[in-house]
Amino acid sequence: MVEIQNWLLNTQMNLNLTRGDTARPSDNSVYMIQTYYPPKADVLEYFSSLDPRNAPARFARVTIHHGGAVEPVIRDYLVGPLPVTPATEMMHLTKIYHTETLPYNARGYDALDWNVPEIHTKIAAPLMDAYKELLGGLPNDTIVAGGAGPFGFDGSFRRFWLNWQRDTPGFWLHPLNLWQYVDVSGTDPSKWDQLKIVYNHQVFDTAESFMDAFHNGTLKRVPPVTKQEEDLSWSTRERIGALRDLDNLPGPRSVSFAGLRFRVDYDLQYVSWMGWGLYLGFDRDMGLNLWDIRFRGERIIYELKPQEALAQYTGNDPYKSSTALLDSYFGMGQSVRNLLPGYDCPDEAIYLPATTFSATGMMSRKRAICIFEQDSGRPVSRHLGFERSEFGAVKGYQLVIRSVSTVGNYDYCFEYIFHVDGTIEVRVSASGYLLSGFWDDEQGAYGSKIWNTTLGSLHDHVINFKVDLDVGGTQNSLLKTSLSQEVTTQPWFDDDWGEEVIQQKITREYIDNEDEALLRFPANFQGGYTIVNTDETNKWGIPRGYAIHPGYSPVYNTVVGSKRLLKNANWARYNLAVSRRKDTEPSSSSMWNFNLPGAPPVDFHNFFDGENIIQQDLVTWINVGMHHLPASEDVPNTRTNTAASSFFLTPFNYFDYDVSIESANAILLQPPKKPGDPFSYDDYNVRPAHCVPQPPAAFEYYPEQVYDLDGKPAPPSTVEEMRKASELYLRIKFEL
Amino acid sequence: MVEIQNWLLNTQMNLNLTRGDTARPSDNSVYMIQTYYPPKADVLEYFSSLDPRNAPARFARVTIHHGGAVEPVIRDYLVGPLPVTPATEMMHLTKIYHTETLPYNARGYDALDWNVPEIHTKIAAPLMDAYKELLGGLPNDTIVAGGAGPFGFDGSFRRFWLNWQRDTPGFWLHPLNLWQYVDVSGTDPSKWDQLKIVYNHQVFDTAESFMDAFHNGTLKRVPPVTKQEEDLSWSTRERIGALRDLDNLPGPRSVSFAGLRFRVDYDLQYVSWMGWGLYLGFDRDMGLNLWDIRFRGERIIYELKPQEALAQYTGNDPYKSSTALLDSYFGMGQSVRNLLPGYDCPDEAIYLPATTFSATGMMSRKRAICIFEQDSGRPVSRHLGFERSEFGAVKGYQLVIRSVSTVGNYDYCFEYIFHVDGTIEVRVSASGYLLSGFWDDEQGAYGSKIWNTTLGSLHDHVINFKVDLDVGGTQNSLLKTSLSQEVTTQPWFDDDWGEEVIQQKITREYIDNEDEALLRFPANFQGGYTIVNTDETNKWGIPRGYAIHPGYSPVYNTVVGSKRLLKNANWARYNLAVSRRKDTEPSSSSMWNFNLPGAPPVDFHNFFDGENIIQQDLVTWINVGMHHLPASEDVPNTRTNTAASSFFLTPFNYFDYDVSIESANAILLQPPKKPGDPFSYDDYNVRPAHCVPQPPAAFEYYPEQVYDLDGKPAPPSTVEEMRKASELYLRIKFEL
Repeated sequence: MVEIQNWLLNTQMNLNLTRGDTARPSDNSVYMIQTYYPPKADVLEYFSSLDPRNAPARFARVTIHHGGAVEPVIRDYLVGPLPVTPATEMMHLTKIYHTETLPYNARGYDALDWNVPEIHTKIAAPLMDAYKELLGGLPNDTIVAGGAGPFGFDGSFRRFWLNWQRDTPGFWLHPLNLWQYVDVSGTDPSKWDQLKIVYNHQVFDTAESFMDAFHNGTLKRVPPVTKQEEDLSWSTRERIGALRDLDNLPGPRSVSFAGLRFRVDYDLQYVSWMGWGLYLGFDRDMGLNLWDIRFRGERIIYELKPQEALAQYTGNDPYKSSTALLDSYFGMGQSVRNLLPGYDCPDEAIYLPATTFSATGMMSRKRAICIFEQDSGRPVSRHLGFERSEFGAVKGYQLVIRSVSTVGNYDYCFEYIFHVDGTIEVRVSASGYLLSGFWDDEQGAYGSKIWNTTLGSLHDHVINFKVDLDVGGTQNSLLKTSLSQEVTTQPWFDDDWGEEVIQQKITREYIDNEDEALLRFPANFQGGYTIVNTDETNKWGIPRGYAIHPGYSPVYNTVVGSKRLLKNANWARYNLAVSRRKDTEPSSSSMWNFNLPGAPPVDFHNFFDGENIIQQDLVTWINVGMHHLPASEDVPNTRTNTAASSFFLTPFNYFDYDVSIESANAILLQPPKKPGDPFSYDDYNVRPAHCVPQPPAAFEYYPEQVYDLDGKPAPPSTVEEMRKASELYLRIKFEL
Repeated sequence: MVEIQNWLLNTQMNLNLTRGDTARPSDNSVYMIQTYYPPKADVLEYFSSLDPRNAPARFARVTIHHGGAVEPVIRDYLVGPLPVTPATEMMHLTKIYHTETLPYNARGYDALDWNVPEIHTKIAAPLMDAYKELLGGLPNDTIVAGGAGPFGFDGSFRRFWLNWQRDTPGFWLHPLNLWQYVDVSGTDPSKWDQLKIVYNHQVFDTAESFMDAFHNGTLKRVPPVTKQEEDLSWSTRERIGALRDLDNLPGPRSVSFAGLRFRVDYDLQYVSWMGWGLYLGFDRDMGLNLWDIRFRGERIIYELKPQEALAQYTGNDPYKSSTALLDSYFGMGQSVRNLLPGYDCPDEAIYLPATTFSATGMMSRKRAICIFEQDSGRPVSRHLGFERSEFGAVKGYQLVIRSVSTVGNYDYCFEYIFHVDGTIEVRVSASGYLLSGFWDDEQGAYGSKIWNTTLGSLHDHVINFKVDLDVGGTQNSLLKTSLSQEVTTQPWFDDDWGEEVIQQKITREYIDNEDEALLRFPANFQGGYTIVNTDETNKWGIPRGYAIHPGYSPVYNTVVGSKRLLKNANWARYNLAVSRRKDTEPSSSSMWNFNLPGAPPVDFHNFFDGENIIQQDLVTWINVGMHHLPASEDVPNTRTNTAASSFFLTPFNYFDYDVSIESANAILLQPPKKPGDPFSYDDYNVRPAHCVPQPPAAFEYYPEQVYDLDGKPAPPSTVEEMRKASELYLRIKFEL
């Protein structure tokens, strides 16, 4: 990143750049530098040979804020090949966008933005008396502001609502009832000003008219909401309450007594575990992503990457009713911080670092990503049977790869969970503070009261993932399976039951056109979607496939047609969608989409232009999300157990059988030959390792004790007797 | 149980009983003895005083098969008070049933049933040549039979389809293509006979006509499907395939190095953990159940108990198209077996026993139930903040109570998972063998081919739970919350965006009548259901409540109107339902329902008779389930990761805040006073215990390393600088 910057600053480039850490809106400066992923065809060709001479050329995406131009504009560039050589070039990156230009009013935000004297003098200074009396404090004292978004609709302006909060720990939960609408359009801060002031449902066009009403007694006031003497620690995370029984002891801890069973190549950012192998990526826009995910040697996913995170609010105040966030703008990856070892991840987790660029400096985290194996605590499969080798279990180990982004108030936990059977679970959960509103009795339709003057605001989260499945190769099809009921007759039904049978049936259909592939899960989940390869069948002649299996909270966005999300988050209208994979459609969103809902640089619907999707290279765009109606239990922070959403990618006729049976962390039992003896077993020589804690008792498995009708222990049962008691009429052994 | 039996056998009772282990259908015998739970009012009164003199009288439910009666009939009785004294009586138990009698043709099944020579001589003997030639074996040799159900519609007959399977390990996956329809009505085995034979879609009314066709060459045959030389071990659980990398080592293991943190009172079957306390129950019909579940001293649930498990199949053969199982008939509790320590539950789990009665003997299991604490591996809440006490995490420990029932082919894992915040997750997952069908090319609409001649049959599982929530007392109401969108205008919106805003809104409604309380989750889960107490509000004036939060696979039954489930499983038509709690409506089903779909002893719809449900004692009946479309990966056994369904019961304005903040297994960080210093922290003196494994490194938390634009480490950031980089425009600190 440094090398690229130096190259850009080279005077021969004539970019007239100011360093980002001192740039004003009217300057040209580098806003962002991050990896631009190479064309898939180049990568696959390289993978097939692994000849370094075939390695794809490396490029960076560079964003420059051209504030000094006659018509200020943002431009994304490709810079490469890298590292910098005389052959390195800078090309305007336009092929991934659906608009001609990126308007300057939609530009990126950084910690220095709006940090100009004009904001303070024009917005805050005239209202000081009102702040003090109505809000109980001053901006440099006990109150603090925040802003809503998006900042614009189509690039013609840059404006936002500013709200006020008590400046106390957990300030997110302390909104006050004064809002100011601020115009920061263009590059000249002297022209910035406020356009409206709202206090207690009263609207003023100027600071003067508001302060007149404040002074002349016409302002309808509400009682001051701040009692300085009140204990505000309820909005901190400080422990309170009686200690629960035995909570003075640490809880159980996962320990790999025989050593970790996954491997990490720190240089290649390559991880492998139990037949899985994959590469990690990380970028500023959306953080952690995964590449070339293989299982048992076969590529299943070329790219698995979060795309965008929407949070749309509602309310009867200007702030909440105009807030529809797209977090790639703020940088979901940029918002990743070091994980808390032992708390965010188990003690024995391995951590990997990440570095991101921002206009004012680069940030490196040593613990951006954690990786650990965990025991799910339940077998992935098991059966109690009595024939030879029917009885046993395979342990349900999982590999977890996790990263947490704290985007201001909210903490998003992104998890990729790999199972021994070839299943991947993608899970997002939320914690952190709510974005709350000022409570008054007219807010009931928009949330729940969670404190004296605080509204827990209703909002929707929807998070989109790109899943570039390659099932048995890149040429795949989309199978839609529907479950319904039929009325049928069969010649064998006697008239005791009647000839008609009402039963379930399956309808299978290949969706052949992108336009038909904007999808929702069927009512009652009666059916689903599978990415299959019709040219590759399993041993039983069925196209190999991976199913998209919904997990927790499979929802899409409730609101459709809001101007603040008019066209910039069309992916959020569905549970999933399938389109042809193109290097020119790398993402369902862009960081510029947030401020351009009316003219988004990436309009997801443009991907769906009638192309055939039978045996093509496909991308499945899958949403997780949550309708978050807060309750008192969101204080101080939202809980990850119910604020969670997930989906599974799971083999569906991909293999000839369940390959988790390969696991040696398993047990197989054989029925005893002599009644009363224990079951014999094979544990494949894999036994719990241990140290000082007493080892688990040696494995044994006796049949149940049976008592006769007198309550006396019955003679030991034969296997056949146990089977009869267990399998009942489902297996009738004729005794001829 | 022994004492009750002896009392029943006492000649003065004049019951003319034959011991169950020798009884024939025409005898009177005791089929079942199990606990009958006392009236709730009596229990609550006892709980309020804990005076032993107020302890509710104890009763047993006793089922007698009156096969020797002039009109054979089943009767359920209440026997008590217990233990047996001269005051003990036997009363006909009718108040919980909706039918006058329990027809004898619907009677219970046991291991001795149908084990009469007539079955063999009439059903099997005439077909021996056909078995040998068409199925490749004989019933006492390499083939084995099984039966479908229900056995009847309204009690007027007892009939079932018998299918044939290869008698090999995993025989469930080896169906053959011959079916026989068998009549076992009444008590006289000499009148039992077969009514139909179906082979390869050809139907015969008698053994003679079938054998004639077999001998005279008119039978359309399919090639013999059994190659004896073929390796059939694919249907066992034997480990196959290459050992995966590092799978020779055991995986991580959960260890409570400081000792277990939950308590178990073995005599009372009482379990407590982290503020939770509850009693365990266990019965033959549905196994493990929970009572008087309290959290932080307050009762949340009086009774949490599985009610019934439905499995409805489909197909184009007589067996699959006529199978609709209700597993309480076979005894979900009776089907519980010892758990596999270390495989079904973690090594350090605690086990509890269970004993059930059956007509031929009682079964006691030492390890029927396991209880263990586990680390979910992620915090229940966390936030990275920079104000005092904003930054920290509470560990996500859980207590799991688990039992596994193997009902023939399938293994149902029932789990109750308690969280530190007051949330309970109820989770059922399935493993074991599919009930499969004989594959031919006409079966495609009913499943997937999973082996040469095997169909993985489509079926629905739906499992009903009784949840008797008592939220702040027994008088509760049902709150329905709906999320929709509104178009609104506000005076403060300028014409840059237009005056109209499209946003989300909440509608709240109390459902006041049982008839309106047969419920499905709304489309896109836009809303939900909460049991609240309108007379008990939290600190913010909101009725305290517990929400029913859907988890994995929240489905109901696909098929409606099938004669084989006509009225006996009406609960399966919904996601949930709420009715007035009554001692006369203890369960949504009964073991007799299975064979009486047309005249069920318990018709769930009868519970819904127009009663008011505002501030009444309510029961919420909640379903989990799965539309199981098998794939090759169901071989050998179904996987518990995707064959899972769950719901959460979670506090919703029940408390004033999230009480998991009470946990001392938590950490709280404070920002460093001196730039560059680590964050200070409080771990409440709870630290990982350890022995020989190296302890985790002492906790430390440094701010991220920031680099300047030259790539050199930047000076350490102040907290305010970190905040700006983290909270962005959501917290604008004015620098006046």
